[in-house]
Amino acid sequence: MNRIITIGREFGSGGREVGKRIAEGLGIAYYDKEILSEIAKRTELAESYVRQVVERRPIVYYPITTGHTFYTNADPTAQYTNSILTEQNNVIRDLASNSDCVIVGRCADYILRDLKPLRLFIYSDMEHKIKRCREKAEVDEHMSDRAMRRYIKRIDRGRASYYQHYTGRVWGDRLNYDLCINTASNSIKEIVSSVIAIYQ
Amino acid sequence: MNRIITIGREFGSGGREVGKRIAEGLGIAYYDKEILSEIAKRTELAESYVRQVVERRPIVYYPITTGHTFYTNADPTAQYTNSILTEQNNVIRDLASNSDCVIVGRCADYILRDLKPLRLFIYSDMEHKIKRCREKAEVDEHMSDRAMRRYIKRIDRGRASYYQHYTGRVWGDRLNYDLCINTASNSIKEIVSSVIAIYQ
Repeated sequence: MNRIITIGREFGSGGREVGKRIAEGLGIAYYDKEILSEIAKRTELAESYVRQVVERRPIVYYPITTGHTFYTNADPTAQYTNSILTEQNNVIRDLASNSDCVIVGRCADYILRDLKPLRLFIYSDMEHKIKRCREKAEVDEHMSDRAMRRYIKRIDRGRASYYQHYTGRVWGDRLNYDLCINTASNSIKEIVSSVIAIYQ
Repeated sequence: MNRIITIGREFGSGGREVGKRIAEGLGIAYYDKEILSEIAKRTELAESYVRQVVERRPIVYYPITTGHTFYTNADPTAQYTNSILTEQNNVIRDLASNSDCVIVGRCADYILRDLKPLRLFIYSDMEHKIKRCREKAEVDEHMSDRAMRRYIKRIDRGRASYYQHYTGRVWGDRLNYDLCINTASNSIKEIVSSVIAIYQ
């Protein structure tokens, strides 16, 4: 059985930790930042710029290439963006074709749909997401709960819009996933055991 | 660890089969029709009437009691309905207090919330639900796909409205569940193994 697991996740829900632990438990690859590095290598663009495009926050308008300029088009930013996103598709497909793996985010559930990955969506209630963000120091420690709530919602709106744009589907809609898991009520250990059991 | 599992499910998704198999796998009780029989016994109303009230389709306006008449109120139907729903709460609480169990539907996730059950929501896409309904002969075999789609949607609208009415929550909203499981892509065997693994 093919062991490719894609993880969509709400910010602060612990989706990345779930992904890492599942990969460890199954003894398969976990791909996250490696994808950005590989895209940067293939496109010869700076990794920081690749990250901004992939996370849909292109704040640097004229990217710095690490090698030669390979586009001479009038709108290089749009071209770079397209190139990065096409390369992201290729990198994700190449990685998944070469080995069993867990991939977090990046519309991997959609990109790899013909490989029939196990598609997880990890979520939680706001209270637990705020708690987790504080514990993991994922946000400024002086941020109020109210500000953190706004911040978490904003990140997820960005994810939803990115997902919708590239897949034409609704982010978080249960029909796009095989299992939706609430980290407010299941421990990471329980979740990992539960997902691993599917392959046994 | 408390082993009480509640199952919310879309019509045609196979939630009942999942529930039965999990109960068998864990060696715990499975409660479904037993709840109706117990309510009928406690209220002295006919089981068929109890079923109609519980499923929110009261087509018999003057219920036949199997024993003596115990309400003399001007609006006996409303009284009977209240009495049945109160008794349903009591029966579900009594059953869950006495033994580990799986309970399908009936807002059990809400009724038993202080016992921290594992709350599952079982769903599927329309194509698979229609296929399953045909296989299991849950609908008239001459019904067209279009009519079946309408029928499935109508049943689920009823469930959603019942759930909303008695819990004040949105039926199928992932935050009300610990695990949402798609039966279009997971086999029943995989689902059962996955849920059982949580208790190991």
